[in-house]
Amino acid sequence: MFFNGSIGIFLDFYELTMAQVYFERNLLGKATFSLSIRTRPKNRPFFLFAGLEPFLNLLKNFKFKDADLEYLENLKIFKPSFLDYLKNFSFKGSIRCIPEGTIFFENEPICEVESDLISAQIIETLIINTLHIETLIATKALLCVNSAKGIPIFDFSARRTHGIDSSLHVARASYIAGFSGTSNVLAGKLWKIPVVGTMAHSFVEVFSSEEEAFKAFSETYPDRTILLIDTYDTIGATKKIIKLKSFFEENKISLKGVRIDSGNLVELSKKVRKILDKGGLKEVQIFLSGSLDEKEIKKLLKAKTPVSGFGVGTKMGVSEDAPYFEMGYKLVEYEGKPCFKLSPKKELLPGSKSLYRVWDEKDQFLFDLIALKDEFVDLSSYPKSTNLLKVVYKDDKILYHESLENIRSRVKEELKRNYRKRVKVSKAVKALYKHLKKKFLYSKENT
Amino acid sequence: MFFNGSIGIFLDFYELTMAQVYFERNLLGKATFSLSIRTRPKNRPFFLFAGLEPFLNLLKNFKFKDADLEYLENLKIFKPSFLDYLKNFSFKGSIRCIPEGTIFFENEPICEVESDLISAQIIETLIINTLHIETLIATKALLCVNSAKGIPIFDFSARRTHGIDSSLHVARASYIAGFSGTSNVLAGKLWKIPVVGTMAHSFVEVFSSEEEAFKAFSETYPDRTILLIDTYDTIGATKKIIKLKSFFEENKISLKGVRIDSGNLVELSKKVRKILDKGGLKEVQIFLSGSLDEKEIKKLLKAKTPVSGFGVGTKMGVSEDAPYFEMGYKLVEYEGKPCFKLSPKKELLPGSKSLYRVWDEKDQFLFDLIALKDEFVDLSSYPKSTNLLKVVYKDDKILYHESLENIRSRVKEELKRNYRKRVKVSKAVKALYKHLKKKFLYSKENT
Repeated sequence: MFFNGSIGIFLDFYELTMAQVYFERNLLGKATFSLSIRTRPKNRPFFLFAGLEPFLNLLKNFKFKDADLEYLENLKIFKPSFLDYLKNFSFKGSIRCIPEGTIFFENEPICEVESDLISAQIIETLIINTLHIETLIATKALLCVNSAKGIPIFDFSARRTHGIDSSLHVARASYIAGFSGTSNVLAGKLWKIPVVGTMAHSFVEVFSSEEEAFKAFSETYPDRTILLIDTYDTIGATKKIIKLKSFFEENKISLKGVRIDSGNLVELSKKVRKILDKGGLKEVQIFLSGSLDEKEIKKLLKAKTPVSGFGVGTKMGVSEDAPYFEMGYKLVEYEGKPCFKLSPKKELLPGSKSLYRVWDEKDQFLFDLIALKDEFVDLSSYPKSTNLLKVVYKDDKILYHESLENIRSRVKEELKRNYRKRVKVSKAVKALYKHLKKKFLYSKENT
Repeated sequence: MFFNGSIGIFLDFYELTMAQVYFERNLLGKATFSLSIRTRPKNRPFFLFAGLEPFLNLLKNFKFKDADLEYLENLKIFKPSFLDYLKNFSFKGSIRCIPEGTIFFENEPICEVESDLISAQIIETLIINTLHIETLIATKALLCVNSAKGIPIFDFSARRTHGIDSSLHVARASYIAGFSGTSNVLAGKLWKIPVVGTMAHSFVEVFSSEEEAFKAFSETYPDRTILLIDTYDTIGATKKIIKLKSFFEENKISLKGVRIDSGNLVELSKKVRKILDKGGLKEVQIFLSGSLDEKEIKKLLKAKTPVSGFGVGTKMGVSEDAPYFEMGYKLVEYEGKPCFKLSPKKELLPGSKSLYRVWDEKDQFLFDLIALKDEFVDLSSYPKSTNLLKVVYKDDKILYHESLENIRSRVKEELKRNYRKRVKVSKAVKALYKHLKKKFLYSKENT
């Protein structure tokens, strides 16, 4: 989508070294890998899933080009027959996944990939990387949306996200979570997200005075001007705006708002509001930005700060208080046999799975149930339930297409459902885990 | 470089709204913007600069394509004459910058851009974004390198960096800082960084037993096998390797090492080392990975853990304990006049600058001096000094090309120079700041 380079070669080297062994030994049986997040950071009540459509689009472009193969050949590790195999590679398989905009919890299988062993293995880095960044940001952005209680929030993070494609993921994921727009023009174009922005402090500095800067900007944008008022002195700038009132009227300028980007936002907003109201500019809105996140927004609203919109930047765009999730992609089944491992803190529920979600008659969340994929589970005594894992890719076709507006609606609905962690594991999964562990311990004793 | 999309449109919307005002009013005078980091996180003794060459390459591709202009036109905010201007835009100007691999401190001008006002303004998001991510990661990676005291470290972070191009920046920046290689194949190809990697837990799980997995892998890679031994039971796996000794000998396999990815790495490494030594596999090295960062590495080495290499992933790749720096790009001069602002905590040293670095006769760091660009400073009483800001871009040409090996050497040299924050501000800069503030306060009193 927004990365047109050699996607096929975006992988961890071990995926190729393993793949060559599989290729040589004809280990091409059907494998299932399962994606989940191992632990949940303290300040995240749940996760919000995003990134699926960008991932699927990248997956379609996961091809090894001539230059890639030449590079690999020069490493003198891979044999010609294996490189030939890569040359013809394109991902074929089946992917089941929860829809974007769905809330989920740690250790739940949120995406399962079934394919031949090599194909399923060599997309590991791509699938984690893409789903990780958007889920990370959607989850953080949702906290901001919740704090803002309906007041619009805008993504201002482009300059300090980790690279350009991160900025695009961030704009998309925060929009999914309920942000109202972004300052990121490229994201606006790619995802049809509303773009916003007015002026920087530098704009004010260029002119001989703040008044001149304000006049120039509002003349060019009579219908959409938001003036940045904290370049020198926020209160002083507000008074200057009052003095410009007749200028605005004469030039048919309807000033939309002012933005404060620094200082004590509570105090300043209240003072500015008073001055504007007294000066006959009641309709002029106040927008706030500058190191905001969900905690700051909460504080601002608790202090009854008069505000019509927030610009939220870096702290959301890098998920500052939890800049990564322990997302992993693990082999759970090979040739019909469940797989598992016992690495400390990296233990695994074996087998291909389903993830059932159960609601009560008022659409409130009751619990999730992790079951084996083909296990019969009787949820008929509950008013409403579904297997969250839907087929989103089959053979070589993407079956998931959803508008961002649709996903945004889902998130809004999700927020009404009273989620908190209640995840059950089916008896069959537990029994399988126990059985495998016992078998392993038995074999250990006997070697 | 690794982003072939519409770079021209990667900007914050306000850069365009400001630019249109400048364009309409013919405000096309020469402007200087200065890049610096406002504050230094507690756990960063200094910053390590990186990202310059990728930025310059992106800058050369900063063009508005037809589809971009069509998108902008449809926003109904920009006039045809301005869109025509953008159509023909390509960055021309002069950029002075410190070399990659240079250590620096907060509030130092590390890069200054001189161009017409519009050109200098609309690259704001691009320059911050690109220099920020690599400087962020180089700085973090250097802490890891310092902790590892000469033991090789490898970048394993590709799966959890924030997007794909972030993974490439991370591989490059960590290599600059002194990492020995990366697992990221695309980065290896792009930057000619050595790639490393062997097997995942999934590899072991695919085979009927660990022995079979170990045999298969080492047969394919007789000269470079590192076996992952913590899938089920690290000690058990090590004993199995001892039993495979004759298999290795018969098949002319020289086992390079084992990797432990979980558990108590200190204890396990010591036990594994003993078993290997006793079993006649003294030459087999131990590699460690799993949630490592500079603090963990320090602990491991303090506990005298036997180890020949570290795989460092997510915590470095997202700079976990400080996932962003407050990097900003500020107008400091317009049409020869110094600019400044007084926004709380965002105050600014006015004027185009030079950044002098002064060393003693033993090449030890003495201090930095921030001066005006054309100010005469007398540093002749010091053994060695230089203006760190070198011209790296002139008119429409990139003048900076440096091999990664060269930059790595610079970093190695930097580490010997005993850096700690000692930054002076020249009298002329101080006087200018005072003068502007006074002038502003005076004008405020008189309005």
